[in-house]
Amino acid sequence: MGIGALNSSFQKNGYVSADMERIWDEKSLIKRIFQVEAEMAKVQAELGIIPCEAADLILENAEPSEELLLKAGKGGVGNPLVAVLDALREVIPEKARGWVHFGATTQDILDTARALQIKEASALLHRRLDNLVKITADNAHEHAHTMMVARTNGQYALPTTLGTRFARWNAELRRSRERLQAMRSRTEQIQFTGAVGTFASLGEQGPELNKRLAKKLDLVEQTISWHASSDTIMELALNVAVLGQSLAKIAEDLFAMQGSDLVEVREEMDAHLSGSSTMPQKLNPFTTMKISVAARLASGMAATLLTQPPATFERDHRQSEVHRDLIPQIFVAVDGAAAKLNFLFSRLIFDTDELEAGIRKGGPVLMSEGIMMALAPHIGHGTAHDVLQEFAKEYREKRMTLSEFCRTRPQLAALEGRLDLDSLTDPQNYLGRAVEISESARD
Amino acid sequence: MGIGALNSSFQKNGYVSADMERIWDEKSLIKRIFQVEAEMAKVQAELGIIPCEAADLILENAEPSEELLLKAGKGGVGNPLVAVLDALREVIPEKARGWVHFGATTQDILDTARALQIKEASALLHRRLDNLVKITADNAHEHAHTMMVARTNGQYALPTTLGTRFARWNAELRRSRERLQAMRSRTEQIQFTGAVGTFASLGEQGPELNKRLAKKLDLVEQTISWHASSDTIMELALNVAVLGQSLAKIAEDLFAMQGSDLVEVREEMDAHLSGSSTMPQKLNPFTTMKISVAARLASGMAATLLTQPPATFERDHRQSEVHRDLIPQIFVAVDGAAAKLNFLFSRLIFDTDELEAGIRKGGPVLMSEGIMMALAPHIGHGTAHDVLQEFAKEYREKRMTLSEFCRTRPQLAALEGRLDLDSLTDPQNYLGRAVEISESARD
Amino acid sequence: MGIGALNSSFQKNGYVSADMERIWDEKSLIKRIFQVEAEMAKVQAELGIIPCEAADLILENAEPSEELLLKAGKGGVGNPLVAVLDALREVIPEKARGWVHFGATTQDILDTARALQIKEASALLHRRLDNLVKITADNAHEHAHTMMVARTNGQYALPTTLGTRFARWNAELRRSRERLQAMRSRTEQIQFTGAVGTFASLGEQGPELNKRLAKKLDLVEQTISWHASSDTIMELALNVAVLGQSLAKIAEDLFAMQGSDLVEVREEMDAHLSGSSTMPQKLNPFTTMKISVAARLASGMAATLLTQPPATFERDHRQSEVHRDLIPQIFVAVDGAAAKLNFLFSRLIFDTDELEAGIRKGGPVLMSEGIMMALAPHIGHGTAHDVLQEFAKEYREKRMTLSEFCRTRPQLAALEGRLDLDSLTDPQNYLGRAVEISESARD
Amino acid sequence: MGIGALNSSFQKNGYVSADMERIWDEKSLIKRIFQVEAEMAKVQAELGIIPCEAADLILENAEPSEELLLKAGKGGVGNPLVAVLDALREVIPEKARGWVHFGATTQDILDTARALQIKEASALLHRRLDNLVKITADNAHEHAHTMMVARTNGQYALPTTLGTRFARWNAELRRSRERLQAMRSRTEQIQFTGAVGTFASLGEQGPELNKRLAKKLDLVEQTISWHASSDTIMELALNVAVLGQSLAKIAEDLFAMQGSDLVEVREEMDAHLSGSSTMPQKLNPFTTMKISVAARLASGMAATLLTQPPATFERDHRQSEVHRDLIPQIFVAVDGAAAKLNFLFSRLIFDTDELEAGIRKGGPVLMSEGIMMALAPHIGHGTAHDVLQEFAKEYREKRMTLSEFCRTRPQLAALEGRLDLDSLTDPQNYLGRAVEISESARD
Repeated sequence: MGIGALNSSFQKNGYVSADMERIWDEKSLIKRIFQVEAEMAKVQAELGIIPCEAADLILENAEPSEELLLKAGKGGVGNPLVAVLDALREVIPEKARGWVHFGATTQDILDTARALQIKEASALLHRRLDNLVKITADNAHEHAHTMMVARTNGQYALPTTLGTRFARWNAELRRSRERLQAMRSRTEQIQFTGAVGTFASLGEQGPELNKRLAKKLDLVEQTISWHASSDTIMELALNVAVLGQSLAKIAEDLFAMQGSDLVEVREEMDAHLSGSSTMPQKLNPFTTMKISVAARLASGMAATLLTQPPATFERDHRQSEVHRDLIPQIFVAVDGAAAKLNFLFSRLIFDTDELEAGIRKGGPVLMSEGIMMALAPHIGHGTAHDVLQEFAKEYREKRMTLSEFCRTRPQLAALEGRLDLDSLTDPQNYLGRAVEISESARD
Repeated sequence: MGIGALNSSFQKNGYVSADMERIWDEKSLIKRIFQVEAEMAKVQAELGIIPCEAADLILENAEPSEELLLKAGKGGVGNPLVAVLDALREVIPEKARGWVHFGATTQDILDTARALQIKEASALLHRRLDNLVKITADNAHEHAHTMMVARTNGQYALPTTLGTRFARWNAELRRSRERLQAMRSRTEQIQFTGAVGTFASLGEQGPELNKRLAKKLDLVEQTISWHASSDTIMELALNVAVLGQSLAKIAEDLFAMQGSDLVEVREEMDAHLSGSSTMPQKLNPFTTMKISVAARLASGMAATLLTQPPATFERDHRQSEVHRDLIPQIFVAVDGAAAKLNFLFSRLIFDTDELEAGIRKGGPVLMSEGIMMALAPHIGHGTAHDVLQEFAKEYREKRMTLSEFCRTRPQLAALEGRLDLDSLTDPQNYLGRAVEISESARD
Repeated sequence: MGIGALNSSFQKNGYVSADMERIWDEKSLIKRIFQVEAEMAKVQAELGIIPCEAADLILENAEPSEELLLKAGKGGVGNPLVAVLDALREVIPEKARGWVHFGATTQDILDTARALQIKEASALLHRRLDNLVKITADNAHEHAHTMMVARTNGQYALPTTLGTRFARWNAELRRSRERLQAMRSRTEQIQFTGAVGTFASLGEQGPELNKRLAKKLDLVEQTISWHASSDTIMELALNVAVLGQSLAKIAEDLFAMQGSDLVEVREEMDAHLSGSSTMPQKLNPFTTMKISVAARLASGMAATLLTQPPATFERDHRQSEVHRDLIPQIFVAVDGAAAKLNFLFSRLIFDTDELEAGIRKGGPVLMSEGIMMALAPHIGHGTAHDVLQEFAKEYREKRMTLSEFCRTRPQLAALEGRLDLDSLTDPQNYLGRAVEISESARD
Repeated sequence: MGIGALNSSFQKNGYVSADMERIWDEKSLIKRIFQVEAEMAKVQAELGIIPCEAADLILENAEPSEELLLKAGKGGVGNPLVAVLDALREVIPEKARGWVHFGATTQDILDTARALQIKEASALLHRRLDNLVKITADNAHEHAHTMMVARTNGQYALPTTLGTRFARWNAELRRSRERLQAMRSRTEQIQFTGAVGTFASLGEQGPELNKRLAKKLDLVEQTISWHASSDTIMELALNVAVLGQSLAKIAEDLFAMQGSDLVEVREEMDAHLSGSSTMPQKLNPFTTMKISVAARLASGMAATLLTQPPATFERDHRQSEVHRDLIPQIFVAVDGAAAKLNFLFSRLIFDTDELEAGIRKGGPVLMSEGIMMALAPHIGHGTAHDVLQEFAKEYREKRMTLSEFCRTRPQLAALEGRLDLDSLTDPQNYLGRAVEISESARD
């Protein structure tokens, strides 16, 4: 049992995927720490810094048992790594014990271990994102011709197709994928330059050790310390949060489309899931809401990270701790949202009748722009605009048709026969490139 | 094991007090939910809404066993209360079971249960704050005469006393106490007006039930639903976060005072606590840093809460979930910081020598303002300002004394005998009301 | 012409009231600075610190001409007050010139001048708020019986009245008024304790000068410096921002109610105002949107202010400058939103037909809670809940009435005659205390 | 005169560069709007959508006079473009007037005009950044051997060189440059797909018009509307803000280095600039502080932008307006900080004596890590760590030298002759790769 939505069993089923949780679990962190320490020992042995036998013993014994993990996880008052190292040393045979963590800086170990977690977490997020890109592309193609009303500022604007909306979501998700990919050369770097970034404790061999260890861990080499630079951690947090906001955009649109006022889409729901304890008729779109919540929390956390004061001089525990707190949570929240959205898409049923109902409710004035464009060459653009405003008013108040309206306006009546009013008010004729746009969506 | 600083055993010892954690533990929430349901049943029986016998059975059996709590805590996918109610109903004898949660709205139960937690958490925070107010007052009095240099914009400004600084901290903490007290009439309210705030499910008796239940739970009565109003929750989060920032102000001053450059104060530390694994000489001021981190996280969370979009119409799960996530965490973080600061104050040793060293290092130019005020009547304010700037330069570059400097400036030499230069450059004479201000600090 | 919504003539008409802008205009700041300097001189003369004649000359000449204001406003590279003082000194006759700003600290003058602006701005905001409280109370009473559908999580929940919604808005605004009032004793304080808060430059008479000056300026006396304490500035910013969010809540509800899908309310609009250049039929609810935008910007700015790192030691220009930037903007944004909302309320036309249309669209299942409460004594609460879920499904798919549905369910058919189905499905009968709640709204 | 630091002449000299202000000036926006309208007309003529003569007349007359700009800038109540178009139409000869803005959507025009501003602003920022990268590289090389103390958590950690610090700043700035460059293909895109993103108003030719216009304006072509997608705007704001935070990191380090406690660097200052009106000795590092303030405001604004709720459906004025408010301000703030930092670097004088003073003050314990590494093979790593902690204590309290200390410890005394204590405590020998790292800084 824990505190907050990502930790409390009261809430977390709505937010957390087991896969991402496992990556950031303390056990995983401790395993990663052990891995870094063991691989470092091995490289140090290769370079003659420590005895080969010691390195072998460390490598063999750094495999963490449940009990060891428990012991290792009792830190936190000061430097959290101290307890982990104590636990590790305990299981290493005495002759190798002194060579554990030899010449290393705890912050380096922690940052490198986290880089390994980041690498794993990014890969998982990429898989989710690939799925979402595919689903939105498929839906865009499938609904390329499904007509619906487009709304701007909450007002019926023009007819469009559902596929066009999917194509937009698809484009946004593809851009996120690009960004997440591009940052990896900066965010999946080793940190191994020592206490103040000078490689002092390992002397001449520091840079070589750093290089080989990076290769072993499959991380990008970096010879300039980033202990006190938060730019790459900010970049990471922000790009993940931006993806979260794109997921929220989709979720909020689907929330509104599921609302009693629109019912353009329904989610197949277990009675249990939708449930209100007191209003049995309700179909609460909880999945969309959980996605929004996750994105709001993630973007709030990324904003917190972005607005931190800089680290002082060569390193600052305050910055490290804030990063250590927020990065896992941001990943967990956004991954959870992505997983939920994948799940949601598999259960959505779009109601083409209700989607078209908006077009019908919009009526002929929904094509005002097109009618205006058709009138403009005859009566001027400004006049056409004003005339259409009047028509909209008449339509709202009296449900007057366009031809009825034209007959009341001599200027327009004169155009009779030169304009095909039926065609102008047919939404099918005013979809523009909606179909092509829908079909341009891709994996 | 959990994710993030407040939940991960890797970090949480540095942040979380057991007392505050217990208040927000899910078990406590579930107990509070059971308490609200049981007290509600009792009032309903009093009002003849449900049978007395049913109420008695609910009251008797709503005491949650460990097993029951575990079962109750398996919620979260949709409405998290559903699992709790299922668990509760299971332990209520069949004849009363149907009367559990009778006519109630889950959100009401959740909000009222949380109001009980808020009440308990606020009381704990007040106790911590009382302690801090007392400690800062005591220190202000004790150090009323302890001289030190005041710094503005990182520059030595004037002499002051340590007591004055404590008096300022004390005043800030007292203001926080005022604010936290004042909000309680708004933040410790019952929520009991039903699904959309109309008392519909309980008919005529709704308002009376609401009133009696508020009294039984010792909460403030409220007849206007705040399901969709977040102002009181914002107020709560923000006032707690502002307190956090006041704690951080103190902690950051003490961090800098503990730095190797100033060493004006030291913390008695266990070797373990201070520790760097690689630089044994270091005395890392971890306690001050943990306080800062907690305050930064809390203010970030409060900012997130403040900037949420409004709830839509009569209620919005997205808002409730964000509140449910953040309120406990903000309390836990700020309370932890307050507890740490209380602990820290008990271990600080102020080094009066080092405090005075700043005064000595500042030299006579530290009294520039006073010298300028003394010269102004003779040579004019503007000239006095410029002359003192020159003196500062000479002092910085050549350690020239004020009387040496005066001799090089005819205008000042002429004043010889009319100004007591020794007295003007004695920091003891330029403390203003520092002692009185120190002694004005109070509980 | 300026940068950003509050300064650019391209945007600011949508956001800024002339009255609030005038209060925070630099001219007003400079006038306030002159006022503080002049009143200080007067009190200094009373106390024999400076010659009476000098004080009189300062008081007489500190009235700022346009030209003087222009000159005074050329600051900013370092300490912005320097240019103001230079300009002021220029207009003071030579014999008094040396007594201008005598023994004063620029930060004290700036903070006290701003306290005067805050006092004036708060008074204006209170007037706007009084209006809004009154309008919402009036509307709550007027629409106490106007039926509409209540929505929770975007789903039709229960019938309610428009008055109930107004009563909720009214309660929220009244709470904001309480908060804004309560903080004034802390946010309208003088700052006059000198460079580091010790009253050093004015010696024994400092506290008396401080007291008399506070009285003259009608500000609260304060003897503890708050140069380095940001709690009261945070409190101010946050309370104003919380009000902004309450205004946004109202605006966002009204935005949705104006949407093409609901059209429950319309705003009387000039053709120009609503305008889309390309879709003449649109009635864009710009006023509600501007209110939302203003609240979003204000809460973002307040969040920025809240999350600032603490000032270092006795004073920190970084903090002062951030405060100096944000406080005026937060007031301007929220006041603008309040003014717009007052304006909007005078132009809203609620469409009772459309409001009731929601009730009709909701159908009998909108009364599910009440029906469930009626069935519960006969068939148990759990069964009743499940039965009503089934009814909702049948109604959605086949528009089945309640009595038709009952006939298909033997269990319910057996209850025929014992339940008044017509009455149970009449929304009028399930309004609970909506009318009384509406009528409880007050000034 | 305006409100807030970026607009008020009281503050803006400290923050705003004339070059960046000019780019975002409303006049520039209006010019850009005219440019887009004119180029669009030209392409429309090429495609036969409007008469060539009309296009020519628009192109010839769209050059904005001062008077025209003034008229155009009176918008803001609703859609701010309406006034601009009215002004534009007025100067276009009547025969072409009807063809102005033909088939265009105001949001498209505004977004495309802003994309042109973004392009220009990014180019300016790149130039500033190139300068900063060069200056930091030059300084890293120049100070490759300048010894100083490295501080972690405010404590003296190890010796390092000033060049190493510059190399870190340099690396961080180069990463920002990479990020800013990489995003340009997404942030400098045309928006031209019409009211709801379907190219409806321009029929078949829409995509071709879009393509040609993008080319003419030297923007990236985009066929999927981003009206309701904020990801690229977020990316832009966040990357610029992250750069701001890197500038703040440098500025805050330099602020502390300029402090009276360290005085490791001084800024050549005009008497006026540094000025305190009341403490003539002060050398307030205003330039560093302005940079910090600008970064704090920019990151706060970017956080606000990141945490906005998504746009609803196809477009949402609330989102557009928030973007329109914040993007210019973020650019202006961060550019101002970059310009100030360039200016500051040209005036900094590093004091090598004071830099070395830290090393001396640190004493032999500053080399504890190295001594520990040397002792470890003899007495074990754990024991070595504990021994060095004891030494640090003795040094702090009694200024005991390492050889004195060794003599008091039999275990260490036994090592006499096997360790070169003088060499071990010589900071020159414990710089690690500091020189090479310094010299790896590059343009």
